[in-house]
Formats: sequence, C-alpha cells, structure tokens
Amino acid sequence: MAVGSQGPRQLVLGLLLCALGPSVSQGGKLLLVPADGSHWLSLVGVLQQLQQRGHDIVVLAPEASIYIKEGASYTLKKYPVPFRKEDLEETFASLGFRVFENEPFLQRVVKTYKKVKETSALLLSSCSHLLHNKEVMSSLVESSFDAVLTDPFLPCGAIVAQYLALPVVFFLSALPCSLHFHATQCPNPPSYVPRSLSSNSDHMTFLQRVKNMLIAFIEISLCNVVYSPFVPLASEILQKDVTLQDLLSSASVWLLRGDFVKDYPRPIMPNMVFIGGINCLNKKPLSQEFEAYINASGEHGIVVFSLGSMVSEIPEKKAMEIADALGRIPQTVLWRYTGTPPPNLSKNTILVKWLPQNDLLGHPKTRAFITHSGSHGIYEGICNGVPMVMMPLFGDQMDNAKRMETRGAGVSLNVLEMTSDDLANALKAVINDKRYKENIMRLSSIHKDRPVEPLDLAVFWVEFVMRHKGAPHLRPAAHDLTWYQYHSLDVIGFLLAVVLGVAFITYKSCVFGYQKCFGKKGQAKKSQKSKTH
Amino acid sequence: MAVGSQGPRQLVLGLLLCALGPSVSQGGKLLLVPADGSHWLSLVGVLQQLQQRGHDIVVLAPEASIYIKEGASYTLKKYPVPFRKEDLEETFASLGFRVFENEPFLQRVVKTYKKVKETSALLLSSCSHLLHNKEVMSSLVESSFDAVLTDPFLPCGAIVAQYLALPVVFFLSALPCSLHFHATQCPNPPSYVPRSLSSNSDHMTFLQRVKNMLIAFIEISLCNVVYSPFVPLASEILQKDVTLQDLLSSASVWLLRGDFVKDYPRPIMPNMVFIGGINCLNKKPLSQEFEAYINASGEHGIVVFSLGSMVSEIPEKKAMEIADALGRIPQTVLWRYTGTPPPNLSKNTILVKWLPQNDLLGHPKTRAFITHSGSHGIYEGICNGVPMVMMPLFGDQMDNAKRMETRGAGVSLNVLEMTSDDLANALKAVINDKRYKENIMRLSSIHKDRPVEPLDLAVFWVEFVMRHKGAPHLRPAAHDLTWYQYHSLDVIGFLLAVVLGVAFITYKSCVFGYQKCFGKKGQAKKSQKSKTH
Repeated sequence: MAVGSQGPRQLVLGLLLCALGPSVSQGGKLLLVPADGSHWLSLVGVLQQLQQRGHDIVVLAPEASIYIKEGASYTLKKYPVPFRKEDLEETFASLGFRVFENEPFLQRVVKTYKKVKETSALLLSSCSHLLHNKEVMSSLVESSFDAVLTDPFLPCGAIVAQYLALPVVFFLSALPCSLHFHATQCPNPPSYVPRSLSSNSDHMTFLQRVKNMLIAFIEISLCNVVYSPFVPLASEILQKDVTLQDLLSSASVWLLRGDFVKDYPRPIMPNMVFIGGINCLNKKPLSQEFEAYINASGEHGIVVFSLGSMVSEIPEKKAMEIADALGRIPQTVLWRYTGTPPPNLSKNTILVKWLPQNDLLGHPKTRAFITHSGSHGIYEGICNGVPMVMMPLFGDQMDNAKRMETRGAGVSLNVLEMTSDDLANALKAVINDKRYKENIMRLSSIHKDRPVEPLDLAVFWVEFVMRHKGAPHLRPAAHDLTWYQYHSLDVIGFLLAVVLGVAFITYKSCVFGYQKCFGKKGQAKKSQKSKTH
Repeated sequence: MAVGSQGPRQLVLGLLLCALGPSVSQGGKLLLVPADGSHWLSLVGVLQQLQQRGHDIVVLAPEASIYIKEGASYTLKKYPVPFRKEDLEETFASLGFRVFENEPFLQRVVKTYKKVKETSALLLSSCSHLLHNKEVMSSLVESSFDAVLTDPFLPCGAIVAQYLALPVVFFLSALPCSLHFHATQCPNPPSYVPRSLSSNSDHMTFLQRVKNMLIAFIEISLCNVVYSPFVPLASEILQKDVTLQDLLSSASVWLLRGDFVKDYPRPIMPNMVFIGGINCLNKKPLSQEFEAYINASGEHGIVVFSLGSMVSEIPEKKAMEIADALGRIPQTVLWRYTGTPPPNLSKNTILVKWLPQNDLLGHPKTRAFITHSGSHGIYEGICNGVPMVMMPLFGDQMDNAKRMETRGAGVSLNVLEMTSDDLANALKAVINDKRYKENIMRLSSIHKDRPVEPLDLAVFWVEFVMRHKGAPHLRPAAHDLTWYQYHSLDVIGFLLAVVLGVAFITYKSCVFGYQKCFGKKGQAKKSQKSKTH
C-alpha cells in the first residue's frame, strides 16, 4: 500500500493560511531588533507574512548595516554608531578570509580569539550607542509595542525588551557554547548530545565522550569573551544587577531554525519551536541568465557552489586547487566568487557574483551542491534533495557537515587540508553514487512532511506572544532554583546525612548493646582469669 | 491594541482539513490495540478521522469488553478470554467503590495493592490469551498492516507490534511511575518536576523536594507489580529476552493527551506530541431532556457533577453529605449517579444515569463542574472555561487537581475527609468568586490558541508513521547507552582518575625533588652537627 504524501495538502493549507491571514488578525505593533549578516536574511520572510497579517513592524538597526535595508513590509528606524558600513564589511571579510590561512594550531587560536574580540567590541559599541541614545529609546517607549522579536546572537534586543518591559521572541539557528540550552534550562547530556566544535556525532566512542565532556566544562567560559561585556551594559541601562542568564532566559518563545532531520534528537523544552527550512519556502523562477547556463549544461546538469555570504574570495593557491578539481567533472559548475578568477579555471566553471541558490538547487538538473554548510545552505540542500560536498569554515558549520555526513547525504572536506583530488573524488562520489541521492531524498521527504509550514509556525508564535503578552505557561519552574537545588544536591546531601546518621546511631547502639551484654561478662572473665594467675 | 484571536482561523482550518482529508490521502491499514475504560473513548474520534481519510482500521479487543463495541469506522476483531464482561465490570466498580472506604492508611495500601494485583492479573490473562491464540495472531500477520496504534497502559499492543515487526504509535494520557519518561529517555529532574501521587506542584519547599526525590527512587519498583509479568510473556512470544524498557521504548511517536496549560512545563523529547483537549472537539447539540433542565434553572444556571465512568455509585453516608451540600446552592445540579438516591436529596438536584458532559459544560449557563479530575474531565472544564470543584479519587487525578488548584481554576477537596460544609463552601467560592472564572477563562483561551487542532495533529502523526514506516529520526541515541554511560559516570570516573593521578605524580615528584635538593644537605648538616658534638 502507499500512504499518500502530505505535499499537496501542505501546499493548499499554506495558500489558505495566506489567504485567510489578514482577515482574521487585527494589527499589532512589533519591534524587531535583528542581527546583521545572513541571520537577517531568514527573518525577512517572517516580516512579510506578519505585515500581510496587518501588523506594524519597526526594524531597529545601526546606520552602518551590511544587509539590513529599507523594505516594503516594515519601517526602518536607524540609530547612529561610531563606525562605518565599510568597517563592518572589512571585519566580516577578514574573518572569512582568515579561515584559509594555514597556520599552526595555537597561533590560529590566538589570532581567531583576537579577531572575535575585535568584532564583538564593534558590535558591543553599536549596542551601547543604541541603549544610550535617549531620543531613540524614548521614542521606542512611546511607540507602545506589543512584543519584541530579536536574534539573540547579540543580547541587545533582549536588553531593549527588558527596558521596554515587553515580552520577547527569539529567532535563531543556535547560540554558541550551548547558551540557548543553558538559558532555557534544557537538559543537555554530554553523553549523547555532541558539543559544538567537537566534530562528534550522537554516537560517540569513550574518548569522544571524554572530549565532549571537556568541551562541556569549558565552553561557557569561552563565550564569555563575546557576551560578558553586555552584562554591565545591561545592568547600567536596566538599573539593576542582571546576569547573562537573566537576559537570555527572558524569551517567551525560542524560534529555532533547526529540526530533527538536520539535528540529532535530544531533550527539548516546551517553549522551543523548530522552524528549520523556513528559508526554503520562498521560491522564484530562474532568470534568463541562469536558465541559459542550465540549458547549456546538457545531460550532465549543473553543480552549485557557494561558500556563503561571508566568503566570496579565497587565497589564490586554494582557488586554483578548487578550480582544478571542478574542471575534472562533466557537469557545469556555477560558482559564486567575487575574487580574481583563478588562471586555471576550466570551461565548465562559470564564476558569478551572486546566485539564486535555493532556486538553482530546486532545478531538477542540479546534481550536487558545494557548500560551506551554514544552516541556510544545509536546509536548502535538504529541501531540494541535492547531495552535498561540504567545506565547513567556522561556527556551527563543522557540526552541520558532521550531521549530514553521518546521514549519508554528503561528503565533508577539511578546506585547509584537502587536495584537488579530494574535492574531485568527493564530487564524483555524491554525483555518481546513488546512495547519496537516495539518502538526501529520504531526508527531504521527512523534512517536508510536517503538520504546519515553518513560516506559519513562526508567525503563529510571534502573534501568540503578542496576543497573550508572553507565554508564562511555558516557563519552567527550574528558573527559580539555584544550580545546586536544580541538581537536587541539597536533597541528596540531606538524605545521605540521614542515612549515615542512622547507620552511625545503629552502629553505636549495637556496640553499646554488645558491651552491655557481653562487655561485663568479658571483663568479669578477665578479672577472674587474672585472679587465678 | 488587540491582537486578533486565532479562534475563527482554527475553525476554518479544521473544517478545511476535514474536507481535504480523503482526497489527499491514499488508504493504509492500521491495527488498533486499545485499553478498555475511558482510555478507549478518546480514541474513537481519531479512528473516525482516520477512516474518513481512507484508512482501513482493525480494532483488536477481548470478547469481554466494557466500552469497546462495534463501530462504523473500524472492523472489530474479537478474541476469546477466560473471563466475562461482568467480571471486568465488577472489578472496575469495586476499584471505584473502594476509594470511599475510610480505613487506616496501611490497611488501605495493602488492600489497594491486592486489588491492583488482582485487576492486572485479569488484564494480563487477556493479553496472554491473545498472544497465544495462533489463529488470531496468524490472521494479523497475513493482514500486513502499516502500523499499530495502541494505548501503552498495558504493553500488550507493543508486544503485538514487535511480533508483527511493525512501527507503533502510543496514545495515552500518561503512564504511572513516570514510565513514559523512562521509556523515551526524557530527563525528569525531581527538583521541579512533581512525581505522581506526591501532591507537589512545580514549586516545592525543601521537604517537598525530599519527598519528591524519595518517590522518584521507589516509583519504578511500585509499577513492577503491574508491568513485570508482561516481560516473560513478551520474551516467550518474541523468542528473545526483552525488558519492559525494550517494549515501551519501541514507540515511534507518543501521542500524549496533555499540554502545558494543564501540566507544568518540563523537558520533553522530539517524539512526544501533545494532544491535550482532543476529547473536547466533538460537540453535539443537547437533547430536549437536558435543554429542559437548563431552561428551568433560571438565572442561577446549572452545576454539572460526575465522578467519571468508573464511579457511578458511592456509600450512602457520603452520598447524603454530598446531597446536603448540593441543596445549599441556588443552582440546579445535574448529577450522574446510578446508585440509590440519597434520602435527603434536594429539589435542585437531578440524578441522571448518564450525561453529555462536554456538551453541558459548553452551555453558557453552566456555572461550575464537580469532577473527579480525570484528564478527560479536566480538559472539558478547561476547553469550556468552567471553574471546577475537584474530588480526585485515584491515579493521576490528585495531580490533575493540584495543577488546576495552583492555577486558581478550581478548589480541590479530599473526598474522604471533606464535610458537607466544605463542599458547599467550595461550590459557592468557584461560582461567586470571579477570580476562578477569570483564571479558567485565561487557561481556556491559551489552551485553544494553537497552530493545529489536537485531532489533526494525532491523525497527522499516525499517518506519518504509516508513510515513513516509523520515525527513526526522532529516536535519541540515548537508547544505545547503558545507564552509567548516559550519566557519563565512566567519563567522570576516568577524568577524576586522571586528575588524581596527575596530582599524585606531581606530589611525589615534588617530594622526590625536595629530598634531592634539600634532603642530602639536611642529612649532611645533620651529620656535620653530630660530628661537632
């Protein structure tokens, strides 16, 4: 028998939701405090839907933003910052370029640490300039919003929400160092939940579990570099002592751009809503330029290649290695690359400054996807069922690549160590070995088989928080316990003390009883004996 | 501003889902192994919807069943058992009647233990007769079902599913002794997750946490009385050694009749789907008889009173106390009661053998609901926004009552200790004190504000498991760890050994170094000194 696919039902429902939308919802006022970069891009669809449903949206952004621009579905409110857009672009670009520098491990760590500190100082100054801008802040107070929607990658939006005493919804892929699990009081057992940067899967050997545990111990202090400076700033603005946990645990609902097709199943909390794949929904027809490339590719089809919004240029030597590998497959490769074209570029490789990634991946002639395995790209690969060659560069990309690799949906390469042969072989494998295609198609069918589309779910929960002024019924009582109470250490200590106390008293009573019964006899015998001597 | 209610959107969507249903789904074959009693009643709606969507459903039930009867939406397949329907009815009725016997605590515990053992022996024999019935079992094999849907209150359905090598969906309110959390590897911190029968809320004092921890220690052994006999039976039938954990952890998806309006927020797992309130959806117009009662009640309206399907008769003394209290309120009371009418019954109290509980609670003139606080009744109270006077009798009813009481939606009474005054005062409070109505209306609005109706969600997940032959992507790797690996005890032991080892070696090296440097000098000095003497 065949149990019918949900596909058509989903589509019809989605359309109906859109059609029904504005007529059943009265407009509210929403304040959005986004993070710049690719994080912003996946929010735009949610804003459009919310605006169509009759809500007024104000987007609060620094004057120097890379991606955040005026848009039809929201009012952009800008605030001055002490840096220019170019400074930001340079910082991001150098972060991207740095990953290709093949230095000794320790040197690499120190340099990355410095770079991250520099970038976060820039972002902190942006936040500080917002919070100290009396004019902007009082205009926000006067606007009487219903809720705040923010990406908590930087806790600036959370501080604004607390300042305005408004409920807040977080929209994110994940926070570094398991901060989102700490903040939601979500159990995070290191025995089968791989820590970020560990390159572990959910099935670990003993030594991998040791490594995972060690990372679990130290990861929080690692994140302090970026997050600790926000704590005194928040305390100053809110005029009370707050901790990072206070700021991050304030969210009513966490909209997480993940699901259990990409991520390993693990404990979750009731206020976590999984909206992985939200970025795949918005499909457009291809432009003539890209249609032409695909048509010219013949029976072999195309390969889509992009290393994400932060990396569009790479060192020449590496670029030449890559170009060499790309030349060895019969497919046409569309490569998003803005740097100087490598001199050995083959005829089958077309460099473009930008490409409609999701639309290209959706084309039936797309055979493979070379990606840095950022969460957006991974979901576009899953949605469209395209096997992947992954070159993770930083952040959660190693973990994403590991997840896809353990599911047999792609091959992961170390971009620093890989040779031209490695890349060519990986490409040939994912294109010619049918198992990769079968696996990614299976993941795709599971991922797309869901009771509600992720975009509708996100919109629902934002509106829910606006309607009910938060979601206190989803806040666990764990937030009101100290760490030792949470782990029942005081109770265990008390019970141990009782058990030991009872054991001690029992022992003493037995000894006393024994002495009482036999002690005197023994002594009497003894004294008798000594007398007989 | 007002953010529009989701209500109308929900309704329209619900209707559309129903309308869309059969046309987008190709029929599958589903085997249902239900539990008898009220557990069965909430399954019927799901069966109707599944049948409308084109699935063939076979319900497997013992010849002696109380509630499970022929139905239009399924084929009933009966198997012989060594007891009659009357035996079962008598057993259930005596369990219900026993709760009113006011005996000393220990005597009560011993008697209840014996009764539960007796009842579970009856149910075990039913399961054993099914599994040993070669004719029935081979006809099941031949039927090639796609999946099994079962209430795991008894693990018989889980054994059948494993025998047929089919994926299984569990449908339940909860299992006793936190078994459903053990089976799903769901963390269950005793510091803020109240254990069943503890009467704790999620905010506990130190001593309540001690009590909770003690219950957490012993609850599993308590459940062994009922569940352990199924283990050798399963091992025999499946011809391999299985544990209770193997049987219960086999479920692909757990459809749990709960939500975080009734239950306290706590960790959950990705394969838990919350469908609390699924029993409220099926509303019918009232019969003329009940319409007449309500119309005659005047401005004061009515009170609905039922102690559930298992208790329809209570000892005369208690019945008279209750009748006395009911006579002291101006409302008309509709009391589901099949015993001899108490002699002091007032004019305002009408005894009925059965009442359309959910439909009556939905009437705007219903002022209060006297309930034993079974999960069905609680949800009907929440859905319809009716404040409750709760008289929990057994099982999860104490916990349900506690949850509603801490949310200010009702008053909980101890049915054994309460006086006539207590009941009258409780009724007057929930009817006249507006806060109870406000609180239950707030809970009601949150409960009903959801992205998908619970019935649609249940149907979706049953079909999902049929379509994909299970849901392995939702099964956590924790199932493949031993208990000490899960809690990382081996890793902690190893790390401690390393730390202690390093400390020991460092200490020994220091001592050795010290002796090397100063030891000889010291000795030299000493010997010098002794020479000078």
